[in-house]
Amino acid sequence: MIKKQIEKTFDKLWPLCRSITGDGYQASLDILSKINSFKKIHFKSGTKVFDWVIPQEWNIKNAYIKYKGQKIIDFKKNNLHVIGYSSAIKKKLTFKDLKNNIFFLKNSPNAVPYLTSYYKKTWGFCLSFNQYKKLKKKGIYDVLIDSSFKKGKLTIGEDIIKGKSSKEIMFSSYLCHPSMANNELSGPLVLTYLASEFKRKFKNPRFTYRFVILPETIGSISYLSKYGKVLKNKLIAGFQLSCIGDKSHYTFKTSRRENTLADKAGINLMNDQKNTNIIKFDPAIGSDERQYCSPGFDLPFASFSRSIYTKYSEYHTSLDNKSIMSFEKMERTVNDLLNLVFNIENNHYYNNKYNKGEPFLSKRNLFRTLSKKERDLDEISIWWILNYSDGKHDLFDISKKSGLKMISLIRTAKILQKSKLITQLK
Amino acid sequence: MIKKQIEKTFDKLWPLCRSITGDGYQASLDILSKINSFKKIHFKSGTKVFDWVIPQEWNIKNAYIKYKGQKIIDFKKNNLHVIGYSSAIKKKLTFKDLKNNIFFLKNSPNAVPYLTSYYKKTWGFCLSFNQYKKLKKKGIYDVLIDSSFKKGKLTIGEDIIKGKSSKEIMFSSYLCHPSMANNELSGPLVLTYLASEFKRKFKNPRFTYRFVILPETIGSISYLSKYGKVLKNKLIAGFQLSCIGDKSHYTFKTSRRENTLADKAGINLMNDQKNTNIIKFDPAIGSDERQYCSPGFDLPFASFSRSIYTKYSEYHTSLDNKSIMSFEKMERTVNDLLNLVFNIENNHYYNNKYNKGEPFLSKRNLFRTLSKKERDLDEISIWWILNYSDGKHDLFDISKKSGLKMISLIRTAKILQKSKLITQLK
Amino acid sequence: MIKKQIEKTFDKLWPLCRSITGDGYQASLDILSKINSFKKIHFKSGTKVFDWVIPQEWNIKNAYIKYKGQKIIDFKKNNLHVIGYSSAIKKKLTFKDLKNNIFFLKNSPNAVPYLTSYYKKTWGFCLSFNQYKKLKKKGIYDVLIDSSFKKGKLTIGEDIIKGKSSKEIMFSSYLCHPSMANNELSGPLVLTYLASEFKRKFKNPRFTYRFVILPETIGSISYLSKYGKVLKNKLIAGFQLSCIGDKSHYTFKTSRRENTLADKAGINLMNDQKNTNIIKFDPAIGSDERQYCSPGFDLPFASFSRSIYTKYSEYHTSLDNKSIMSFEKMERTVNDLLNLVFNIENNHYYNNKYNKGEPFLSKRNLFRTLSKKERDLDEISIWWILNYSDGKHDLFDISKKSGLKMISLIRTAKILQKSKLITQLK
Repeated sequence: MIKKQIEKTFDKLWPLCRSITGDGYQASLDILSKINSFKKIHFKSGTKVFDWVIPQEWNIKNAYIKYKGQKIIDFKKNNLHVIGYSSAIKKKLTFKDLKNNIFFLKNSPNAVPYLTSYYKKTWGFCLSFNQYKKLKKKGIYDVLIDSSFKKGKLTIGEDIIKGKSSKEIMFSSYLCHPSMANNELSGPLVLTYLASEFKRKFKNPRFTYRFVILPETIGSISYLSKYGKVLKNKLIAGFQLSCIGDKSHYTFKTSRRENTLADKAGINLMNDQKNTNIIKFDPAIGSDERQYCSPGFDLPFASFSRSIYTKYSEYHTSLDNKSIMSFEKMERTVNDLLNLVFNIENNHYYNNKYNKGEPFLSKRNLFRTLSKKERDLDEISIWWILNYSDGKHDLFDISKKSGLKMISLIRTAKILQKSKLITQLK
Repeated sequence: MIKKQIEKTFDKLWPLCRSITGDGYQASLDILSKINSFKKIHFKSGTKVFDWVIPQEWNIKNAYIKYKGQKIIDFKKNNLHVIGYSSAIKKKLTFKDLKNNIFFLKNSPNAVPYLTSYYKKTWGFCLSFNQYKKLKKKGIYDVLIDSSFKKGKLTIGEDIIKGKSSKEIMFSSYLCHPSMANNELSGPLVLTYLASEFKRKFKNPRFTYRFVILPETIGSISYLSKYGKVLKNKLIAGFQLSCIGDKSHYTFKTSRRENTLADKAGINLMNDQKNTNIIKFDPAIGSDERQYCSPGFDLPFASFSRSIYTKYSEYHTSLDNKSIMSFEKMERTVNDLLNLVFNIENNHYYNNKYNKGEPFLSKRNLFRTLSKKERDLDEISIWWILNYSDGKHDLFDISKKSGLKMISLIRTAKILQKSKLITQLK
Repeated sequence: MIKKQIEKTFDKLWPLCRSITGDGYQASLDILSKINSFKKIHFKSGTKVFDWVIPQEWNIKNAYIKYKGQKIIDFKKNNLHVIGYSSAIKKKLTFKDLKNNIFFLKNSPNAVPYLTSYYKKTWGFCLSFNQYKKLKKKGIYDVLIDSSFKKGKLTIGEDIIKGKSSKEIMFSSYLCHPSMANNELSGPLVLTYLASEFKRKFKNPRFTYRFVILPETIGSISYLSKYGKVLKNKLIAGFQLSCIGDKSHYTFKTSRRENTLADKAGINLMNDQKNTNIIKFDPAIGSDERQYCSPGFDLPFASFSRSIYTKYSEYHTSLDNKSIMSFEKMERTVNDLLNLVFNIENNHYYNNKYNKGEPFLSKRNLFRTLSKKERDLDEISIWWILNYSDGKHDLFDISKKSGLKMISLIRTAKILQKSKLITQLK
């Protein structure tokens, strides 16, 4: 029952003010590293990463709006109140002057919106529309943002588990959002518990596994600038985790190529679910898979979500909080992804040794001796695997053609291999 | 507002007795040439064109059926009354003798049918069934068809506008039908006004444009006998215009190859419409695209129609007249085809210069500085174009994948090119 | 009216106790050979065929269960009562001892199930559940199975009709089931009458035809062990006939490759029917096509059925008897398959001699001289064939594209060939 641990970790992470750099991000990564140890990879401010430059590190201690000596907006109560990467300010302002730096959502009057301005210096406050309406038009406001910029670093957490093969499977998520739940404490939480459970359950894996937590966009671009070539050579399936913590069913987004191992494994997992939504790669609306699937890399990177970014009403506001989360579903997601890993670990192409006619199963005790009207599932699996062990169909392909589950095909393939009826291809 | 001009030209063309050769055809082409100048290309009677021979030129001055001295059927009132290419006759006939050369439609009693006999000498009258029923069975009929055959010519109107590239876009329609409206004054009218508007709007086009008006079948075969090789080498998109003047929505017919630039551009235009009907190339029922798409040429020729041949009740009868036309829709068609031309002119394959990860848009002022919940359309276009600027997808492909309109993609691609983020491929 | 002959032959075959070897099988093949002469090919017991070994020959003279001197279960009344390949037994048994060797279907209380145990020595009786319920639990049962095993032979009936080409069309069915009707007297009956009618109607066929009757699985594996290489080289279309005698509509199962000539011809035939069910090759549930389509051969073998194995309630029980058969439909099947053969015999790829524009049909009397609103079917066929006589589309492809029937395309193609407009490709 890891759902209680996930919830506990969620509660620890929640109040921290994360951004693409800074203390909140570092503290958050440290909390996750206690569950699964991530190596920190640093990129210094000013470093060129492809077309981008690592920005200065941003930190914030305090921020508020006071009216007549009373804090009416307090960053310490909700870190969404300050635009990410806001410059410092300490000033007395009239309502008229303050107004230009205040943001709210008229259509969602209780929600504090989430805004950032990473690459252009500005400052500002985000309020709910209800808070905004209460502001008096007369009098003077005391405004403070106690933030600072410095030459610092951008940090990526990485955990690589070597397998027998140098071929790699990768999971990626991002940790740069302040206090929001589905988008995006869910992704790094699922990824971290997945990494931890993976190590418990897969002691000597076939493939090499790469678990990566980073700040969105600039983080994955930095990572690619360093490891893109390696990934281009070795990655056979990558999965972006984002918005994967609420109560909804899964949304699976294919890779740009649509037919990679990541797509086959992901769609296979979706076919085991009752309700799912399978959508195609979209370079405009998405997360780090947009970088992984940029045409110069075009990595086999698919994405798992539940209520996906831009498609749920609480998205990018203070309403995306614990109340919409399901820690039970997050545990289930960890388990489903462990199954996905199990399927990938056990997916092979085979050759049928007796490929002219069916082999004689009875003498190998692979066939009921007494003919019956009903075929049992294992027999059906045997025939599907034998017929498609032609070096051109892997178990995912056979699962798709036959409708049989991977678990059943994997079990049967092992029996057939033991019986020397099929041989695994490299 | 060209619809009024189109209507005026329609009214001038309407009464002329066109056929695949002869004075009516020539006069009609002359009327159209006043709107857009077409060069006349002549093929002499007797000339071999592939498997065919250019027939003699047919002309007709007068024709009637008189009964008791009264004209009861008069070619001058409706030129459909005489079968096209009828031989001359001047005779007194009993009803019994006359009957064998009279044609009508029992199921459409008010309609005079449209019949021709280009390649077998005969004569005949077409009547409405109601006219036929009034014929007396006793007495003598005076029958006159004052027609003549001579060694003459078949004429094709052609207007070529040279572009920067020798690659060609072609529009074709036919002018051989006598007084019928949708099929087929609409095609040559739309084509002529399209050519004229094209020249006004595209001063220095990228591609070479070829506008062709000819008699159906024998005309396109003649044209191919002379220019087929050129077209095979240079044509990248051709469009047949036929039955394109009534009030109905568009019917788009693909080329034989189904996936040419003509198909991509045509289907893209259809996707911008509310109601459309997309059908596949059909070698049995169609117009000159049957010749252009004959397997020895297999040109990229698609077709635009509204209520298409054989599929509307007035087809090939006197009921296909001005009352079923919409000059407003014809104007809209001209404009839609100008848009199609615009899209083709501006369609390119691009390479993304920063194809590893996304380029840093902010420093180029291509990205909102303040993150918001909503993406605006131009940003979405930017990402789609960047990701698919891989040398393998043109803007039509990106439009299909993204659902974004060409107008938006073209505008964005120009901005990206100016910002040196993408480069146009040849 | 061959349906009466089919019924007569059915009645003769019905009582014989067939199995994969033995006198009942031989006698059945002899009965069929009187309708169409099949050459017998023998495989001796003990012969290795790929991974299998030909089993001993099994024969049975008598079998019963007696209680208090009365036969309560009698093999002579229904040969399904004895498990196929049962060992001999003559014993007095208590109900308790007998019970372990008795099989019935609780859910179908009137049905005697069909069971075999070819490859593991055992004995047993099959009863209806109603018969089983009447057995007394006290007292002694006299049990007799007078069966025997010997070094004998497995026999395949084969009839090859040489054609002008060495390319082959094959039909296959199996004769190893005892008294059951749809599965499987229907297959060998349809095949035998098809072979006989084929010879009457196709005197000098284009292709070589191979009609084969064998015991299921071991029979086709034996056949492949001898002729698999030949078939791999020469077979262009094979058809398995199984469960093809009841009142239902057709089920067509594609070959493993899904797009062979067998598939094109079969699906074409299905498209001429009102109701049909087209399913894909399934290596787990099927008949000898599983062997023919094993990956080492992957022959172009499709299957025709009506109510297909495992999908009708009477399957593999005594309820699969004459009452569910339709001899009229079996006759229709023979005729439909003769049409399929006719279509294959007359299917060709053509080249259009005048492939640049349409040829001038009028001078060859291939076109109505007077234009009309309606196209007639032959004209439509002419245009479809001309346009797709490009060496890449055979008549089956043209039929699929156009929706025109093969009969019409074949007739038209012959006319066009006679008119020297198209030439047949080899």
